[in-house]
Amino acid sequence: MATSRVAEKSCFIFLLLVSSSFLAESRTFKPRKPCKRLVLYLQETMFKGNNAANATAATIANPNGTGLGGFKFGKTVVFDDPMTVDNHLHSPAVARAQGFYFYDMKTTYNAWFAYSLVFNSSDYRGTLNIMGADMMDEESRDLSVVGGTGDFFMARGICTFRTDEVEGADYFRVQMDIKLYECH
Amino acid sequence: MATSRVAEKSCFIFLLLVSSSFLAESRTFKPRKPCKRLVLYLQETMFKGNNAANATAATIANPNGTGLGGFKFGKTVVFDDPMTVDNHLHSPAVARAQGFYFYDMKTTYNAWFAYSLVFNSSDYRGTLNIMGADMMDEESRDLSVVGGTGDFFMARGICTFRTDEVEGADYFRVQMDIKLYECH
Amino acid sequence: MATSRVAEKSCFIFLLLVSSSFLAESRTFKPRKPCKRLVLYLQETMFKGNNAANATAATIANPNGTGLGGFKFGKTVVFDDPMTVDNHLHSPAVARAQGFYFYDMKTTYNAWFAYSLVFNSSDYRGTLNIMGADMMDEESRDLSVVGGTGDFFMARGICTFRTDEVEGADYFRVQMDIKLYECH
Repeated sequence: MATSRVAEKSCFIFLLLVSSSFLAESRTFKPRKPCKRLVLYLQETMFKGNNAANATAATIANPNGTGLGGFKFGKTVVFDDPMTVDNHLHSPAVARAQGFYFYDMKTTYNAWFAYSLVFNSSDYRGTLNIMGADMMDEESRDLSVVGGTGDFFMARGICTFRTDEVEGADYFRVQMDIKLYECH
Repeated sequence: MATSRVAEKSCFIFLLLVSSSFLAESRTFKPRKPCKRLVLYLQETMFKGNNAANATAATIANPNGTGLGGFKFGKTVVFDDPMTVDNHLHSPAVARAQGFYFYDMKTTYNAWFAYSLVFNSSDYRGTLNIMGADMMDEESRDLSVVGGTGDFFMARGICTFRTDEVEGADYFRVQMDIKLYECH
Repeated sequence: MATSRVAEKSCFIFLLLVSSSFLAESRTFKPRKPCKRLVLYLQETMFKGNNAANATAATIANPNGTGLGGFKFGKTVVFDDPMTVDNHLHSPAVARAQGFYFYDMKTTYNAWFAYSLVFNSSDYRGTLNIMGADMMDEESRDLSVVGGTGDFFMARGICTFRTDEVEGADYFRVQMDIKLYECH
């Protein structure tokens, strides 16, 4: 009996170790370490009517807003923007960001985004789908990665926006710090 | 050998207990008990051109619909609505609901929503991202909470809409019963 | 001591088996076997002003695009399309697809979708919420199932589009191969 008690005890310790590692993996994210991370820059050049060759986005409704406040509330933009690994305008695109946003505050500039990152390179093939609020006044703001396909099969995570440059209504660049916490 | 068989058997029982608790946690949601629940009221005051001071939403396309049926099919609204803990118009906002909806049926009023709940209070900081169909004729209808950030890091769940009041096209109030089944 | 070592060893082997089955279930999807699969056909008949009786979708902005390229960049459509189990136009609908899409490339036809599948039959009650890029030039393309309600409570997965028929701007049919990898 003594030997079996020792064995049981060892077994129980193993179980605790295994179970706590499962719990750590499936339930807690502290410290929140991503299973994959990508830092990319979205570069958007707005269509002004005469720059189709290099424009990547166009206003689809209410170019001046709806009149609710002075911050273009309701202006809506569809984009197909290049994503680059650094913040140089002419760096090669490693993905496309395809989707839309609209302005949605009357007291400041604020937007709401939904879009897909479409990867089609030797590094990655597949998409990440993202949506959330872009509170532009904040230094950083978090959107949700709600799904993925291909190399990003069933991914979930957080996409942190940080404004990198704004040139009036013509061009802007946002750093997107993509942290996946569910990878398959 | 007899003692080791006892130990093995005990060990196996432990394993079954542990494994069934894992399965219960990761696979089944019956009885479906949320890990967090919030019941809030969305209050929307439509912009009519002369009420910018208290309006919280504006039509961005097709105010009268597209002509497909008589229920404003295609009318699209962007909103930044206060969320309150009770159904009084002037209760303080505990969150903002920022997003859009459009009407999408030709035989009755029906809408499709995508939005973020933005919390920025002493209770919660972060966002919940929600999308789904709002079949207004139903007493209650379920949308998906597809992601979260900040205090709602990686959350998922169900957001149940119940219409609380409708005052023509000027104002409506919807109870949002938010049940999270994945919390981290 | 010899017997306890045997017991420990057996126990450890059990643990490995159990833990690897957990890992298989919760972390890897190779071979990626869905827990539920539905193959349905979306059938969209565009509203042309005089066909309200059978139209299921309407353009809500930029019928001819925004002028950025020649592929209707920015044209936006709201739909409430029947979903059928085969590709016959007059088959009974087993679900409705309610949502919107817009064209978003200047060099080819390409769209971005967000919508809900609304089931209300003896087979299924509930919704699936889907979003992603529709790269129409590809034979098949994957969007994300980002949430579900009712019989599809908390579902996640992949929805694969395959174009089945296109009749100009009047009608199209897309096969939607819905594979859920998280079922509850």
